Amino acid sequence: MTDNKYDVIVVGGGHAGVEAALASARLGRKTIMFTMYLDTIGMMSCNPSIGGPGKSNLVAEMDVLGGEMGRHTDKYNLQLKHLNTSKGPAARITRGQADKFWYRVRMKELIENTENLETMQDTVEELIVENGTVKGVRTKLGIDYYGDAVVLCTGTFLRGRIVIGDVKYPAGRQGENSAENLTQSLIDNGVHMERYQTATPPRIDMRTVDFTQMEELYGEKHPRYFSIYTEKKENPVVPTWLTHTSSKTVEVTRDMLKYSPIVSGIIETHGPRHCPSLDRKVLNFPEKHDHQIFLEMESLESHELYINGLTTAMPPFAQDAMLRSIRGLENAKIVRYGYAVEYDYAPASQLYPSFESKKINGLFLAGQINGTSGYEEAASQGFMAGVNAARKTMGKDPVVIDRSEGYMGVLVDDIIHKKTPEPYRVLPSRSEYRLTLRFDNGFMRLLDKAEEIGIVPEEKIAYLKKCRDDVYSAIEKIKEVKVPMREANELLEKVGENQRLTKGVSAGELLKFKNVTYEDIAPMAELEEYPEFVKNQIETMIKYEVFIERERVQIERFKKLESMRIPDNIDYTEIKGISNIAKAGLEEVRPMSIGEASRISGVTGNDIALLIANIK
Amino acid sequence: MTDNKYDVIVVGGGHAGVEAALASARLGRKTIMFTMYLDTIGMMSCNPSIGGPGKSNLVAEMDVLGGEMGRHTDKYNLQLKHLNTSKGPAARITRGQADKFWYRVRMKELIENTENLETMQDTVEELIVENGTVKGVRTKLGIDYYGDAVVLCTGTFLRGRIVIGDVKYPAGRQGENSAENLTQSLIDNGVHMERYQTATPPRIDMRTVDFTQMEELYGEKHPRYFSIYTEKKENPVVPTWLTHTSSKTVEVTRDMLKYSPIVSGIIETHGPRHCPSLDRKVLNFPEKHDHQIFLEMESLESHELYINGLTTAMPPFAQDAMLRSIRGLENAKIVRYGYAVEYDYAPASQLYPSFESKKINGLFLAGQINGTSGYEEAASQGFMAGVNAARKTMGKDPVVIDRSEGYMGVLVDDIIHKKTPEPYRVLPSRSEYRLTLRFDNGFMRLLDKAEEIGIVPEEKIAYLKKCRDDVYSAIEKIKEVKVPMREANELLEKVGENQRLTKGVSAGELLKFKNVTYEDIAPMAELEEYPEFVKNQIETMIKYEVFIERERVQIERFKKLESMRIPDNIDYTEIKGISNIAKAGLEEVRPMSIGEASRISGVTGNDIALLIANIK
Repeated sequence: MTDNKYDVIVVGGGHAGVEAALASARLGRKTIMFTMYLDTIGMMSCNPSIGGPGKSNLVAEMDVLGGEMGRHTDKYNLQLKHLNTSKGPAARITRGQADKFWYRVRMKELIENTENLETMQDTVEELIVENGTVKGVRTKLGIDYYGDAVVLCTGTFLRGRIVIGDVKYPAGRQGENSAENLTQSLIDNGVHMERYQTATPPRIDMRTVDFTQMEELYGEKHPRYFSIYTEKKENPVVPTWLTHTSSKTVEVTRDMLKYSPIVSGIIETHGPRHCPSLDRKVLNFPEKHDHQIFLEMESLESHELYINGLTTAMPPFAQDAMLRSIRGLENAKIVRYGYAVEYDYAPASQLYPSFESKKINGLFLAGQINGTSGYEEAASQGFMAGVNAARKTMGKDPVVIDRSEGYMGVLVDDIIHKKTPEPYRVLPSRSEYRLTLRFDNGFMRLLDKAEEIGIVPEEKIAYLKKCRDDVYSAIEKIKEVKVPMREANELLEKVGENQRLTKGVSAGELLKFKNVTYEDIAPMAELEEYPEFVKNQIETMIKYEVFIERERVQIERFKKLESMRIPDNIDYTEIKGISNIAKAGLEEVRPMSIGEASRISGVTGNDIALLIANIK
Repeated sequence: MTDNKYDVIVVGGGHAGVEAALASARLGRKTIMFTMYLDTIGMMSCNPSIGGPGKSNLVAEMDVLGGEMGRHTDKYNLQLKHLNTSKGPAARITRGQADKFWYRVRMKELIENTENLETMQDTVEELIVENGTVKGVRTKLGIDYYGDAVVLCTGTFLRGRIVIGDVKYPAGRQGENSAENLTQSLIDNGVHMERYQTATPPRIDMRTVDFTQMEELYGEKHPRYFSIYTEKKENPVVPTWLTHTSSKTVEVTRDMLKYSPIVSGIIETHGPRHCPSLDRKVLNFPEKHDHQIFLEMESLESHELYINGLTTAMPPFAQDAMLRSIRGLENAKIVRYGYAVEYDYAPASQLYPSFESKKINGLFLAGQINGTSGYEEAASQGFMAGVNAARKTMGKDPVVIDRSEGYMGVLVDDIIHKKTPEPYRVLPSRSEYRLTLRFDNGFMRLLDKAEEIGIVPEEKIAYLKKCRDDVYSAIEKIKEVKVPMREANELLEKVGENQRLTKGVSAGELLKFKNVTYEDIAPMAELEEYPEFVKNQIETMIKYEVFIERERVQIERFKKLESMRIPDNIDYTEIKGISNIAKAGLEEVRPMSIGEASRISGVTGNDIALLIANIK
C-alpha cells in the first residue's frame, strides 16, 4: 500500500519510543509508532521514580531541548522533592514519584493528539534492509511499512524471558508477550547482540500493610519542577513510607538463597549493578541487616504498592517470607510477584553518537536495546534518536550533545566507548564536569542546541535566551558594584558571618560568603526582578566561580580534542607504533575525533600522540 | 503455605470473573481472583455496548440480585438510551455505551477495595482434583492455592489463537498471552472440550474520520438506568456516528473474500451468528449494500473509535480497503486491526443449573468457557457461579433462576440442554415468557431470590418489597375504583380516544385504553406518590393484564413439570419404550426434573409420558 510510507518509523512505545516518536513528529516528519499493545504506551514497568542524581539532569536537559518526560512528570506525579539543598550545587536535584497510571494514560492521549504521528498495534518482526540501508519494517501481521529512518526502542521485549525462581517463560513484561524474531533480523544485518537482565520487586495490596510501623515521607508543595516551563500552583504531597529489613529478613533470605535464580544459575546474564536485588544485597553485604525499604504508591487510581528495595526474582514462597520479615509487612499480601527479565540488546559500540547504527544506515537505536537501564536514560536517548532520525530524513547533520554539554552527552559517549559489565546507568561520578552540568542550568547550556533542533517554539527560545543574557549581565553588574567596607561588614554581621572586611569589596566578592544570598546583593547592584531560576543561576555562578572556571578550562581542552577530526577512511593498521589492542579498539569504534579516540578502552596517551602525528 | 487456603478461587478477571469474585467475597467467603494481567481486570475486549434486547434484562436481573454490571455501567458510560418505547413492554430495554477505560479502571479499584477479596497476577495452569473433587489450582509460577470451590472464567484465553488473514498466533486477546495448559487439566479430569471462535472489528484513529458525512446519534440525559439503585442527576450524551457500507464496500469485500480466513479455512470453528463479520454478511447477503456502520468512542480518555459493524479477521490490506470504501472513512487509519480468536470451551451440557460441573465436584464454570458470547451473558453467569460456589462452601443449596423467573434462567437452561452450533447469545426469542421477563420488573420477579442470596443489604430488600407490595395494592385499588360514565368519557375525549362508554367502568378498565396513562388514573384511585419504576409497573401490569395472565398460566404448567423431580439414581436404559436418542440425551444431561428432561434435544412428548409413568 502506498500509504505505508513514512519518514520515520519508531518501534516501541515505552519511554524511549514515545520521546522518539514525539520528537520526530514535532519536527514535521510523518511518523508511525509501533507498539505491541496500545494500552501500555508510556508504561513505567518498574518503579514510579523519575529523577535522582544524574537522572534529573537528563530530564532537565531533555526538557530544554523539547522532550516530554520533564513536564509530563511535573503534571502526573504523587510527589516531588528537591534534594541535597545543603550540598554543593552539582548535587542538587529533584526526585519525583510519578503517578504511573496517569503518566501512561495521558502519554497515550498526547501521542494520539500529536500531528504527523500515527500509532499501530502490531509487532515488528523484521527490518527491511537494502544495500546496508534500512528501508522499513515487516510486522507480525505480514505488513511492510516503509520509512527513511527506523528507530528501535524495544526495551526488554527482544526475546524477553521472565524468571521467577525456577520458572522461566517468554514475556517482555509479566502478562505481556515477547518479540521473538526481530533479534535475528538484526543479526542477519551484521548487528552483534548480547543479553542483559533486569528485575522488579513484588507489588502488594495496600490494605495488608501496617503503616503505623513506618515512617511517612512527604514531598514538597512547592518543589523545584523538572521542567522550566511548568507553572503549577501546588504539587500533591502523597506520602511514601519507609521501613527496614530486619535480621530475620537476612536470615530468611540467606536460608533461601539456594532458590535464587542468580545463585542457581537460571539467570546467567548481568543485571543493573546500581539496583541490586535483595538476594544480591544479602550475598554481597552479609553483615548489613537494615536495608531501607520504601513503600511507594503506584497511582492514586490503584491500591498496589511498589516495594522499593525488595527487587527479587526469588520463587514466590521466598518472596512471601522475605516480605513478611519486614516491620509493618508481617501480613502483607503480594498481588504481583517480583521477577527478572532477560532480553537481547545491541552493544552500543556499534552506534554513532547520533544513535545511528554503524552497521545499518538509517537505523537508530535507543533505550535498553543499547544496554542502558532507567526511564530517564531511555527517554533521553529516544529523544535524541528521534531528533536525529528526523534530521536524517531531512538531509540535516545530526545534533550531538557532548560530555561537556550535558549528561546526555556523557551517556552516549560512555555507552559507545566503555564496556560496562551490566546495564548502564547515568551517575554524577561518570561526569568530569559535574559542576557545569547542573540540574538547574540546562537552559544556560543547551539553548543553542534547542534552537538548532527546532522543537521548542521560537518565543520560548527567545525568552530563555533573554534569561540567559540576564544571568550574564547581572553577574557583570554584581561584580562591578563596589560595596563600602562598613556596609559590607554590616551585611556580614547580619547574616552571621564571623569574618570582617578591612576595605570595600565588590558585591560579587561579598556574595561568595556562605551566608550571603542573592537577595542580599540584588539591591546593591540595582538588579531588576528576575524569575527564580535566573536568580538561582546568578547566585550559583558567582558563589562557585572558581570551581566552575576550573571546569571551563578543562572543557576547553576537551573541546579542542573533540574538534580534531579523524578522517573517515583512516586505516589504523598502517599507523606504526600504535599497540594492537588500541588498533582493535579504534577499528571497532571508528571514532570521529581524537577526543573520542582517547576515551576508548585500551587506547593510551602514546597511541593518541602517534595518531595525532599521523593525521597531521 | 497455610495462607494459600481460600473458600473460593476465581480464575479470570473479565466480566464473569469480576462478578463471581465480588459475589463470593460479598457473601463473606475468603476469595482470591487470578488474572494474567492485573491491568486488564474488567476489560471490555470488544464493543463498548452493554444491554440491548435480552441482554438488558440480564443486567437488570443481576442488579436486583446484587451484581455489579448494571450500576457500574450507569456510572461509567458515554451514553444510555431507552429503546423501543413505542413497542410493547417486552421490547423496551436500555442500551448503554460504556466508557471502556473507566469501566475497567474503576472495576479494578472496586475489586481492590472489596473485603475478603484478594487478587493475584499469575496464570492458572492446572486444577488440583482429588477423587473427583476440586481442591485448588496450580499456577504458572508453581504455586498451589487451595480452595473449597473453584470458578473458571477463562474467556477466550484457553489455548487462544488469534487469526488475521493468514497469520495465526497464540494470544487470548491481541497483545496478551494465552493460557496453554489448563485445557489439558480439564480434559484429564473428564471434561469434554471443544473450540469456538469470536472476532472484533478494527479500531481507528478518530482524527482520520470525516464526521460531516455521518449522522450523529445521541443518548438521553435522563435515561432509564440499568440499576434500580442508580440516582444520577444527568447522564453524559457523547455522540456515536452512523454511516453505511457502499456498493464499493461489497465489491471490495467480495474481491478479497479469498483472503478471508473463514473462506480459506484457516478459521474452522464457529463464531457468534448474531454478530457476523462483514465478510460473512457479504457472503450471506450478497445483494445488500448498505450495512449499518456505527462509530463508537472507546472512552473519553482515548481517541480510538470502535467500528461497530465491521467485525473481520481479513488480512490488513483488505481491512484497509473495506474500511475506506465507507462514506466518511475514505482516509481512516486503523490503529488496531480486527481479528478473530479461537479458544477452548466446555460444552455446557456438562453443567448443573448451578453452574457446577457434573464432572468435577466443586468446580464452577462461567462465561465464554460455557460456549456463550457477550459481556452480559458472561457477567450473569459469573454472578450466579460465584454465588453458588460461595453457597457450596457454606453447605447451602444452590440458587437457581428458572426460565419463568428471568433471562438468566433461560440462558442457563438453554446452554445446558440445547446444542447451538455457535457461541450462545441471549435473545428475546429464546424466552417463552417475554412479557413476564421485562427489563423493568426485575424487582417484581427476583426479590425473594435476592433475599435468599443475601448480597443486597436488608434495607434495600425491605424497600423493594414495599415497592412490590405497593404495586399489587395499587393495582387492587385501581381495579376497584368505579369511574362514572361521564367522567370516563371526558378522559377518553381528552386523551384522544375515539371510543365512548355507555356506562361507568373501573379505573383499571379505563387504564387499558391505549392513550390513558397512570397519571390520568392515579387521582381517581387516590394513590400516594410512588417512585417512577413503581408507577411504571402498575401501568404495565394493568394495561397488559390479559397477556401477562396468559403467560402466568403457562408458567404454572412449566413450574409443575419443573417440580416433578427425577431421582438421581434413575437408570434410563431400563425404561421401556423410550427412544434410544432420548435415552442418550437423558443420560448425557441427567436432568433433575421432568421439565428439564422435556427440553433436551431429541426427547419427545411420548418419551416424557413414559418417563413420568415410570417415576410414579
